[in-house]
Amino acid sequence: MASGSEKFERLAALVAEVVNLRQASGILYWDQQTMMPKAGAEARGNQMATLDKLAHEKFTRPEIGQLLEDLRSHEASLPHDSDEASAIRVTRREYEKATKLPPDLVERLSRAANDGFGVWLQAREARDYQVFRPALERTYGLMREVADVLGYQDHPMDPLLDQSEPGMKVAEVETLFAELRETLVPLCQAIFAKVDAVDDRPLRQRFPHDQQMAASREAARIAGFDLETRGRLDLSVHPFTIGFSPNDVRITTKVDEDFLTTSFFASLHEAGHGNYGQGVPAKFQQSLLDDGPSAGLHESQSLLWENVVGRSRAFWEFYYPSLKRVFPAQFDGVSMESVYRAVNKVQPSFIRVDADEVTYNLHVMLRFELEKAVFDGKLALKDLDEAWNAKFKDYLGLTPPDDLAGVLQDIHWTGGFGAAFAGYTIGHVSCLQLYEKACRDIPGLEAGFARGEFAPLLGWMNRNIHAHGSKFTPQELLERATGRPLTAKPYLAYIRRKFGEIYGV
Amino acid sequence: MASGSEKFERLAALVAEVVNLRQASGILYWDQQTMMPKAGAEARGNQMATLDKLAHEKFTRPEIGQLLEDLRSHEASLPHDSDEASAIRVTRREYEKATKLPPDLVERLSRAANDGFGVWLQAREARDYQVFRPALERTYGLMREVADVLGYQDHPMDPLLDQSEPGMKVAEVETLFAELRETLVPLCQAIFAKVDAVDDRPLRQRFPHDQQMAASREAARIAGFDLETRGRLDLSVHPFTIGFSPNDVRITTKVDEDFLTTSFFASLHEAGHGNYGQGVPAKFQQSLLDDGPSAGLHESQSLLWENVVGRSRAFWEFYYPSLKRVFPAQFDGVSMESVYRAVNKVQPSFIRVDADEVTYNLHVMLRFELEKAVFDGKLALKDLDEAWNAKFKDYLGLTPPDDLAGVLQDIHWTGGFGAAFAGYTIGHVSCLQLYEKACRDIPGLEAGFARGEFAPLLGWMNRNIHAHGSKFTPQELLERATGRPLTAKPYLAYIRRKFGEIYGV
Repeated sequence: MASGSEKFERLAALVAEVVNLRQASGILYWDQQTMMPKAGAEARGNQMATLDKLAHEKFTRPEIGQLLEDLRSHEASLPHDSDEASAIRVTRREYEKATKLPPDLVERLSRAANDGFGVWLQAREARDYQVFRPALERTYGLMREVADVLGYQDHPMDPLLDQSEPGMKVAEVETLFAELRETLVPLCQAIFAKVDAVDDRPLRQRFPHDQQMAASREAARIAGFDLETRGRLDLSVHPFTIGFSPNDVRITTKVDEDFLTTSFFASLHEAGHGNYGQGVPAKFQQSLLDDGPSAGLHESQSLLWENVVGRSRAFWEFYYPSLKRVFPAQFDGVSMESVYRAVNKVQPSFIRVDADEVTYNLHVMLRFELEKAVFDGKLALKDLDEAWNAKFKDYLGLTPPDDLAGVLQDIHWTGGFGAAFAGYTIGHVSCLQLYEKACRDIPGLEAGFARGEFAPLLGWMNRNIHAHGSKFTPQELLERATGRPLTAKPYLAYIRRKFGEIYGV
Repeated sequence: MASGSEKFERLAALVAEVVNLRQASGILYWDQQTMMPKAGAEARGNQMATLDKLAHEKFTRPEIGQLLEDLRSHEASLPHDSDEASAIRVTRREYEKATKLPPDLVERLSRAANDGFGVWLQAREARDYQVFRPALERTYGLMREVADVLGYQDHPMDPLLDQSEPGMKVAEVETLFAELRETLVPLCQAIFAKVDAVDDRPLRQRFPHDQQMAASREAARIAGFDLETRGRLDLSVHPFTIGFSPNDVRITTKVDEDFLTTSFFASLHEAGHGNYGQGVPAKFQQSLLDDGPSAGLHESQSLLWENVVGRSRAFWEFYYPSLKRVFPAQFDGVSMESVYRAVNKVQPSFIRVDADEVTYNLHVMLRFELEKAVFDGKLALKDLDEAWNAKFKDYLGLTPPDDLAGVLQDIHWTGGFGAAFAGYTIGHVSCLQLYEKACRDIPGLEAGFARGEFAPLLGWMNRNIHAHGSKFTPQELLERATGRPLTAKPYLAYIRRKFGEIYGV
């Protein structure tokens, strides 16, 4: 009879095959978004659907289920936080979810995501949501199927949310949004009344593409992302990060030549995700522990570099002289303080990814509420564009000029519908919870930014978050790192303090 | 009982899965050569090995064998050249070869190729063949295993040659080389004696990278390769072409800023391969008919655009004014005729891919003879560098200054050893055989080049070669297109005529 260790080795080999298929599919996705000639879309759909189907087929083979059963006593004999027990535990959890999904459904999801991406691009060109609607109806139908297959007690979005935020419930997200709404809505109104107190015109000049890319690369480097031997930075319609091992992590950005902020902060943001990918130990790379445990915790790392670092006064004390060297004419006579204020301008705006730290979570709340209304049967997808615009008017006082600036802005709905956005808000909240603890552990942390010292912060995240891969649930990991469960208090305190000072509110 | 058509549909679906896995592996390879951060190599090896192993596993499943048996009478009821009969016939031939190779050997080949590529890069940096030798010994050992498993009657390289040149034997290649040697060796000697009759200094000036890339893109476009919606041109250490469907075909080049010829003709060459890929009908894209039947016929298409078109006087009559606009200073006072002569300079040189049309096949002959000597046990791999240099001195009168300019120049030996080079010479020979027929079919074809009319030639190749995918064996296809079997006569007549005129020999 094979020993526990032998069985674990066999399990690890079977899982490695699945991981390699998923990584291969990721490479095809990256290529599709950055390099692929337009006409290649149809073949790419077939290729990705085949890989996704096979990955699913290989992961759900009965031998894995049998090994997981056989390994129960071996697992119990190991410490909970050992690599081996964690790999068995996480593999079992994923296996149980995956065996519920029939291969045929997985393949249909993959094809719908690929087709949906193509239709989304067409709809964006036409600036018309109704072009995209049939693709979204298909995706939504598939999501309902997924929810039914995975099962739920309280809400059909619960099992979908669980895919990106293991353990989190729709009801908890609603509670979190209620707490945020209480502070953010009055704060926004107070700031909107004084919106001219901050002038962001210095950022709205002509900044040529190539210099912006140079600044974006510099931003990623400052954040500690390895662009040389273990990573890349490219262009895509919607910035994203993807890793195929800790030694091959790729981030993308997009450039608006009339607005410096878009690419610069997208690069810092994706570099934060990239830091997570590059920070997971290589020993996990052929296992299911090879990335963070949730979208929200991943987002905490991107927001850390985009907002908490990149929009801090200390960062600009350090970085502004370099930026001025790249764009001397544009920043002639502009003070560091005005740039600091400009990058923190709060205003109602259309595009989520360009939104400031105060309004951002209103954008997320809107999406979450619309998705929930669709799942609750209170909103039909044919009316999603109008519902979007009405709610947008409610929260931000604006009506999008067209669907491109409204309901068509996010890539997320090309491949899924339901609960994927909540992770962004969980990201904001957990980001500040982690940062508060890092500041307590490392005296003078933020002051060091002004001297270009960012490595201590990355080191803290490497040790307390990245080092664990997905050994722990997001809740466990957050508690291990900060000593308490998810709380919005540090985030709300940070927002009140920072924007209270800038706007005098 | 399922009908023949139903069984064929099932077979096609199973084969499509294999084709998609191979295409995915191809995308990973392209990325590895053009985009991948250095440190990603190890993970990439695992990913590609997994895909290659699965593709093999899926292709060799007994159900495919059973379907191929069951389809024999259905196949016999269809015309030999019908798409369906051809798909069954080609799938059966490939299946019989593939079922002979154990999956474990396929995976070891894939890993060896990946590792070998990394070691080759290191050896090139060190300019030292002995750094590469252990990788080559591993590859050679695997090739012997492959030969033994596939089986042979006459020579162990026969089954390896059969992989790229179905139906061709090592003994036939030797006969072909003997015929070429008879004309080429004395012709080379006559030309080498008058080597200064052609001055290629106009091509050996400073040509900045970006302008060269612009000229290279223009060259590919002139050849008819679609760079916009169905293809790309990128940079890599060794130029190559790969396709993932007729709608996604990618070519690469490399730039030498001190020599115009390298990138310009590499781009024309790869565009020729790319034309083949883009020319295969889309209906074949999910089947094994989705590319040409042999490396040699593929090479006939690349050499057509690189040499027969790109080094013709008529081409330069058309193109020289454009090139002069890109490089006005470099070509100030240089006549079209001197550029035509310069791009046709014949001289002993180190690098195969830079060699002229007359010496090129001596480079190939050298590799073929060295490989054969290793397989015949007459040469040890530890002595390959010295044997290379000695033979090089014999054929071309030169000794490579280091291994980078010698035995380390080709990427081919990173993934295989034995018979892959013969296709280049078969390519030269069949290229001129096809071109001679195209000229007979289309009066004034070559004169049209001077007016920028290249579409008739591409159209002829589309109809007579590309349109058939790999429905026919190379021999069948060549006979269908030209009315006779492979013959070196048109190639030798072309070489004697063209270079006789240029050198007055």
